[in-house]
Amino acid sequence: MPSNNKEAPRSVIRRLPVYLRILDNLIRNEVEIVSSRELSEETGFTAEQIRKDLAFFGAFGTRGTGYHTSVLRENILRIIGLDEQTNIVVVGAGHLGNALVRYNTTKNPYVNVVAAFDVDSEVVGTKILDVEVVHSSKMKEVVEKYDVKVAILAVPSDHAQVATEDIVKSGIGVIFNFSPIKLQVPDDVYVHNVDLSIELQSLIYYATSAEDKI
Amino acid sequence: MPSNNKEAPRSVIRRLPVYLRILDNLIRNEVEIVSSRELSEETGFTAEQIRKDLAFFGAFGTRGTGYHTSVLRENILRIIGLDEQTNIVVVGAGHLGNALVRYNTTKNPYVNVVAAFDVDSEVVGTKILDVEVVHSSKMKEVVEKYDVKVAILAVPSDHAQVATEDIVKSGIGVIFNFSPIKLQVPDDVYVHNVDLSIELQSLIYYATSAEDKI
Repeated sequence: MPSNNKEAPRSVIRRLPVYLRILDNLIRNEVEIVSSRELSEETGFTAEQIRKDLAFFGAFGTRGTGYHTSVLRENILRIIGLDEQTNIVVVGAGHLGNALVRYNTTKNPYVNVVAAFDVDSEVVGTKILDVEVVHSSKMKEVVEKYDVKVAILAVPSDHAQVATEDIVKSGIGVIFNFSPIKLQVPDDVYVHNVDLSIELQSLIYYATSAEDKI
Repeated sequence: MPSNNKEAPRSVIRRLPVYLRILDNLIRNEVEIVSSRELSEETGFTAEQIRKDLAFFGAFGTRGTGYHTSVLRENILRIIGLDEQTNIVVVGAGHLGNALVRYNTTKNPYVNVVAAFDVDSEVVGTKILDVEVVHSSKMKEVVEKYDVKVAILAVPSDHAQVATEDIVKSGIGVIFNFSPIKLQVPDDVYVHNVDLSIELQSLIYYATSAEDKI
């Protein structure tokens, strides 16, 4: 049995869904065994890193053969918590929120978007695909009813902290934050920041460095 | 003068815009000097890491005092290539593309979105804020005219590789890829993948681990 007594480093946890995607592809192509070397070619991580990551959760390949794709996939699903669909909500039903509801509803088999929240009376009551846009004042009610675990925060910066307080009060413990501000949350709430402008700015280095910096 | 002869590690390049955002805030509040310890508190990186990152580009603080905020900001802008606005395009004018055009037009002072591209006749010719949606067949023309450096790719997965080939042919060397597929590109094209479902899946570990995994 995998040991989860010691907490896995975030870097390991971030690599698990990458392995999962590759295993999904291999299983679709009826590949039953995969070596850490093959996983390395697909992912760009070293074979040693991969063996270490998987051993952390008690998944050991057979020497000279590799890992059973379906067994490894089941292990990773259970480790991450994807063996059951996770209920999530999207907070903010503007363009970004709309895109995130659509993306997760159609492309992400492991989550179920139960509602989008907004405060704008123009969008409250409308639907994004089959997902209803509900007024933020009903967040706690919806979160408790559907046992929602994760909120994706996609509101404008000036609403982000207020929306965060609604999310925390509703009992959600994990926030996937797309707004470019540092959220104030209690210690037991986990925030993961996606900062698209920071990522884009760092990319510009590569766009300009070739001609200007050598 | 900073030395750019040896290429900076990607990890350093990714931290520079984080420093930049903090410096922007400090300068707005008329703070003239900042220590690596203060930068550490704001960023969560160690003070040693920060000193090492900045020294890599020849920016040395004064011992016992710190860095001049405006001098350091100017250095970082020049290093990244943000001292002049960078022209970018968004490929795909669906919900995500729409959100990305709006976000970068209104919130990202360092880039200028010159066009969005799509192949859908329903959206070609429309505008997102002031940005025109142009047919993808005109990409090379627009890219050459405006010396576009970066493409944000926000098309559905099944169009991603075709759109990538348009981007590469147009002469753009940096792609910020939001589609969940591995793009095939020539060696001199730099692709940065943003995979939102992978990030979200790894977050679910934190959402479910507290109750199920201890």
